[in-house]
Amino acid sequence: MTAPLDGIKVLDLTRYQSGPACTVLLADLGADVIKVEGPGRGDPGRNVFPVPGEDINPYFLAMNRGKRGITVDYHSARGREVLHRLGGHCDVVAENFRPGAAEALGLGYEDFKRHNPKIVYASISAFGERGPMARQAGFDIHGQAVGGLMSTTGGEGGAFPVGAAIGDQMAGLTMVTGILSALLVRERQGIGQRVAVSLYSAQLALQTWEIGYHAMSGGTPAKAGHSHPIIHAAGVIWGSYPTSDGHIALGVLGETQWVNLLRVIGMPEEANKGSGMMRDASHLEDKIRERLSKQSTAHWLKTLQAEDIHVGRVNSYADILEDPQAWENDYLVRVRHPNGRSYNLVGCPIQYSQTPPDIGNAAPELGEHTGEVLGEFGYDEKEVEALRKAGVI
Amino acid sequence: MTAPLDGIKVLDLTRYQSGPACTVLLADLGADVIKVEGPGRGDPGRNVFPVPGEDINPYFLAMNRGKRGITVDYHSARGREVLHRLGGHCDVVAENFRPGAAEALGLGYEDFKRHNPKIVYASISAFGERGPMARQAGFDIHGQAVGGLMSTTGGEGGAFPVGAAIGDQMAGLTMVTGILSALLVRERQGIGQRVAVSLYSAQLALQTWEIGYHAMSGGTPAKAGHSHPIIHAAGVIWGSYPTSDGHIALGVLGETQWVNLLRVIGMPEEANKGSGMMRDASHLEDKIRERLSKQSTAHWLKTLQAEDIHVGRVNSYADILEDPQAWENDYLVRVRHPNGRSYNLVGCPIQYSQTPPDIGNAAPELGEHTGEVLGEFGYDEKEVEALRKAGVI
Repeated sequence: MTAPLDGIKVLDLTRYQSGPACTVLLADLGADVIKVEGPGRGDPGRNVFPVPGEDINPYFLAMNRGKRGITVDYHSARGREVLHRLGGHCDVVAENFRPGAAEALGLGYEDFKRHNPKIVYASISAFGERGPMARQAGFDIHGQAVGGLMSTTGGEGGAFPVGAAIGDQMAGLTMVTGILSALLVRERQGIGQRVAVSLYSAQLALQTWEIGYHAMSGGTPAKAGHSHPIIHAAGVIWGSYPTSDGHIALGVLGETQWVNLLRVIGMPEEANKGSGMMRDASHLEDKIRERLSKQSTAHWLKTLQAEDIHVGRVNSYADILEDPQAWENDYLVRVRHPNGRSYNLVGCPIQYSQTPPDIGNAAPELGEHTGEVLGEFGYDEKEVEALRKAGVI
Repeated sequence: MTAPLDGIKVLDLTRYQSGPACTVLLADLGADVIKVEGPGRGDPGRNVFPVPGEDINPYFLAMNRGKRGITVDYHSARGREVLHRLGGHCDVVAENFRPGAAEALGLGYEDFKRHNPKIVYASISAFGERGPMARQAGFDIHGQAVGGLMSTTGGEGGAFPVGAAIGDQMAGLTMVTGILSALLVRERQGIGQRVAVSLYSAQLALQTWEIGYHAMSGGTPAKAGHSHPIIHAAGVIWGSYPTSDGHIALGVLGETQWVNLLRVIGMPEEANKGSGMMRDASHLEDKIRERLSKQSTAHWLKTLQAEDIHVGRVNSYADILEDPQAWENDYLVRVRHPNGRSYNLVGCPIQYSQTPPDIGNAAPELGEHTGEVLGEFGYDEKEVEALRKAGVI
């Protein structure tokens, strides 16, 4: 059994997070991802947010494991030539430079297309390539702001980003869809093309219902607080609830679950009244909250699950890293590093019955595979040596 | 030019959000998505969270536009037979029933595979199909809780879900990747298979860096508050900042941007000190916040952009719905409904140079295309009539 993208070659010009988050999933799925970095310095993602006392950078590791790494000075004409030659034999080129920068470097779609008409060329921008913001660059936090999620998340007192860098991450994952669909087009219709996503578009894709709702209703959604802006406003029991030692999440949409919940938490008089789905439960919310706070999370998980009431524990990262559910489904993986140590990371979110993912090991050292990769693409030892001497690779 | 998935047929057994969010994107990409609902009642998503005074449900519209709809009683043997016959000529079957329910209904992978060995069968569960929670069902909110994001988002005072139903939405978008990669395998290797994702796996996929970081560092991340747990703890200026009339987002990673920011907001003495990237700016944060609060959002957008400092406005949904940037990139689309009205919705997040998406119009009425679809799959009028009389369709 081979991995899903076995035989697909990706020339990866991306750096930081949005692009690498895309190509690392392609690598998990079996693609040969060749990460290109400038000689000497490399992807700035190698150095951001280190863990004190550790020499391995978890940001770079999470975004680049399973890739091969080469150095090419893409500011030089000879470096550009090397990349064009490599791109001539790749299936995909991916970039997340500032808008216009790839073209200025001679690394735009048209440049690669000339060498390889069927290339799939994938670009990630901050806000989209048309419109008044087309030339603006932005990081994760700017995508989250412009994308609207910051305006509805959290309680009163400001604008709250999500607790992880999902602006970048979502753009990368959305680009995976763009690349896979374009590869499918290439297989079925025989054509290559350029695909583009942005931090902005990927954020909106997370909120299709909520934005559609407010396009219809007008007005501004309430803050989510401990619930969801629309669902909570509809009077549904939905959100996080403190227990005596943590938090659980409840979302009660079914009639049976509603009646059972009230009975189990000791509100039989309310349970006996029955319920229609979607009935306004807001007048009972404080009481439900108070009842739940009297017992432990473990108690409620056991008791509510026994009654087939949907419930979830609010997991910390420490909880997740110890959760057998995450390990048994390969949602977490342990990767071996050449330094002899192993690291726990998030694995591939998709399971395949026939073509399982192929989770790579460490992220490449800067330039680790330069000679190897150039050799595979037809460079002889003399050429490689000359490029090295000239500082091109 | 055809859409990317032109010619791909999807038998869509999904309901509520996680499954429909997947298949609606497949429909945007040009697949013929045949949504199957039980006669009489249909997808419960038709009725949740209505807009007061509107007869069109925005939840159902956002999740199902561009699909065709048929009714089949999949609890009956004859209904099952109809679905097997349809599945025999489809490329994809998608379901998000409770774990085990599809198999119990005779609608599992093995059932369809018997009729169509190359079928791609896609399942979404709450927490994954192996492990102690394999049989537990869950909604969006439970996926967000178990997936960890709720523990890091927002300020003090509890566990904060994200301000949109990204538990369901992410599972659906991740399943798009699962289906497209499996279709690519089918084209290249000639085999079908079953693919599976969960709300849990999709949430973890949003946090690969952050979870990897804490796997390495131990401990529990701080709450994100107005920033990001790890980036803020590293002393970087990163997050939402109040202006005199709204909020902007700043994320300062580059040295030049740092110095320019300090100069522009009137802290020249600090700017003159220069800066290394990633320097601890936390002692200046209150002062920066105070300076930014003195002027309007429009002022800061203009002033900071002029200095090439990355900045983004914290958009409300109303802002987004009026944003030319969103419209010019087709991130928002206007779809026509047979009722004569048009509705604004989020479009496809990906742009293609050769095979543009094909955004459908309205979501189907219950059973709207039953006769048409069955006819295309070889049922003659007499058969359709008999099934209708028997209450099977």
